[in-house]
Amino acid sequence: MSEVNGRNGAPVDLAAWSCPLPLRDSPTVVMGHGGGGALSAELVEHLFLPAFGPVGELRDSAVVDVGTARVAFSTDSYVVRPLFFPGGSIGDLAVNGTVNDLAMSGAQPLYLSTAFILEEGTALADLGRVAEALGAAARAAGVRLVTGDTKVVDAGHGDGVYVNTAGLGLVGPGVDIRPGRARPGDVVLVSGDLGRHGVAVLSCREGLEFGTAVESDTAPLHGLVAAMLDTGADVHVLRDPTRGGLAASLNEIATTAGVGIEIVERQVPVPPEVADACAILGLDPFYVANEGRLVAVVPPVDADRVLAVMRGHPHGSGAAVIGRVTAEHPAMVVARTGLGATRVVDLPVGEQLPRIC
Amino acid sequence: MSEVNGRNGAPVDLAAWSCPLPLRDSPTVVMGHGGGGALSAELVEHLFLPAFGPVGELRDSAVVDVGTARVAFSTDSYVVRPLFFPGGSIGDLAVNGTVNDLAMSGAQPLYLSTAFILEEGTALADLGRVAEALGAAARAAGVRLVTGDTKVVDAGHGDGVYVNTAGLGLVGPGVDIRPGRARPGDVVLVSGDLGRHGVAVLSCREGLEFGTAVESDTAPLHGLVAAMLDTGADVHVLRDPTRGGLAASLNEIATTAGVGIEIVERQVPVPPEVADACAILGLDPFYVANEGRLVAVVPPVDADRVLAVMRGHPHGSGAAVIGRVTAEHPAMVVARTGLGATRVVDLPVGEQLPRIC
Repeated sequence: MSEVNGRNGAPVDLAAWSCPLPLRDSPTVVMGHGGGGALSAELVEHLFLPAFGPVGELRDSAVVDVGTARVAFSTDSYVVRPLFFPGGSIGDLAVNGTVNDLAMSGAQPLYLSTAFILEEGTALADLGRVAEALGAAARAAGVRLVTGDTKVVDAGHGDGVYVNTAGLGLVGPGVDIRPGRARPGDVVLVSGDLGRHGVAVLSCREGLEFGTAVESDTAPLHGLVAAMLDTGADVHVLRDPTRGGLAASLNEIATTAGVGIEIVERQVPVPPEVADACAILGLDPFYVANEGRLVAVVPPVDADRVLAVMRGHPHGSGAAVIGRVTAEHPAMVVARTGLGATRVVDLPVGEQLPRIC
Repeated sequence: MSEVNGRNGAPVDLAAWSCPLPLRDSPTVVMGHGGGGALSAELVEHLFLPAFGPVGELRDSAVVDVGTARVAFSTDSYVVRPLFFPGGSIGDLAVNGTVNDLAMSGAQPLYLSTAFILEEGTALADLGRVAEALGAAARAAGVRLVTGDTKVVDAGHGDGVYVNTAGLGLVGPGVDIRPGRARPGDVVLVSGDLGRHGVAVLSCREGLEFGTAVESDTAPLHGLVAAMLDTGADVHVLRDPTRGGLAASLNEIATTAGVGIEIVERQVPVPPEVADACAILGLDPFYVANEGRLVAVVPPVDADRVLAVMRGHPHGSGAAVIGRVTAEHPAMVVARTGLGATRVVDLPVGEQLPRIC
């Protein structure tokens, strides 16, 4: 490969790149520990895993055997602020986010649990709106809400409504989709343009306006995944680029599979209104959260037909090839710029926008 | 039946007893909405269920079909304060509570998810202790922690550590254990003495001492349940009397099955130190939370052998018959007092002790 430069323009020491990260010096939890980036990874690697014991390959959802069934199992808590934002709400995220985590293992999502942590004093009308949104999103996604829990914490110890969903899905025979399967030569695709969710939440939270209103892309992606699998393609990896955005997803794939990933900057679709907002706010769209997009890694022989099927699906109409998997620079993601140079797309330390989901 | 008197001594109008509860007048969430009593039931019935659609019979865990497997699925969030208390911690509760919810459907618990909502500024050392406790409890219970999530909320919008666990278990063929199966004539048993968890947490929280230290009873109960089922007994109902205590569990069974339940006060085992603490604090031990006890409803023909097996198990050594299911006063629980009178054991409105689990 050609020389790789860091953001400061200096060449990067590739040999030092993929060493494990130590738990940093802060003695306390910082916002970045929940950001889906390097700090989150450190917390998992250096605090949770030693306590919990081995959990297998880290991925959006676990695939476990229950009796004779292969079951995908996933959980996420949602603490987004505000509860309602352009294009969606915490209820949409709580359904679509967990549905998508199941779909990223190639599972057919079937059942969700819902667990609320409510702050004393929250308006029941607001909770009702959240519940309605959650129910509507579940019906739209074709999943059933089958079990739940409600806890209340005293005023000042919560923030209105936090909701956790866990999900169960059925993994079909022969389906094996996980980050560790990325192979040099594979093609990297995205299902649509990037950055809408993060910009929508931020604009709403800060009362910003960017001329054109940006709406969240929140959507359930299991129908799109099913269509992709129906082509018979051997899909190697699926990820939904939520916290930490495209950069975090690609870095996790590269690290887990021990491969390099090279993307071409101008092939990554970013809507003009997102690009404008990011320019104003100093954000990098590659790091902004999405809630209705996926990254797919497929063998080159399958790429064209997978791309065609994605483009024919309502949630994949903006699909594009953005790069490829390489044997070079393992565990590193680089972007080829418009000028033909490459830059490192590193794992974010935290999340640019706290409480984005 | 003989006349039933309410707590104020006046006869109770039985006809009016089992009408559905309206969502009460408060426009906001109150602590009692998380207490596992009448306010919690109202929130589920009048807010969540209309939004979510039908969820089937309400119980500790849902039993759903995933492919060819019958899977028990449950979730609970844990917001107990303080994080560590005599006899256990939030980590023990997060494992044992969800394991027990699965066991109450007769399932073999297999896998748990863990989802943390951390408050910015929480000491990583404290989080580490919680994680260690969680891992140790999972190993002790023989369940695997397979998937997880971490979110961080800004200081002042959380309370150190909240943790949600969801669980999966395998339900064997022919196993059908649920509140709706209680039948007149059935025998009601408990697996041990009651009230230890609630008193342990309260004493720690308030800095109270009662002469003898009371420790939480937190324990995983699936081994006990397996031993009970191995007798071949047709166990009709299992419940773990957590929030709202014995009173809430019995009322839920009575309401769901449309039966009456009559317990004999002096047969309900309450440790002297719990009775003393309750007397000082004005609590009723029937309403105090337990985290390592179960209520079982079994046909009379099976009662003796189930009781014998329970008493032979480490988590059931204090098991006792406490009453029976009746055809009289459906949806109502009554206690026969030492004086031969009966009193209504009504569903608590909220929880006597907020944030008990």
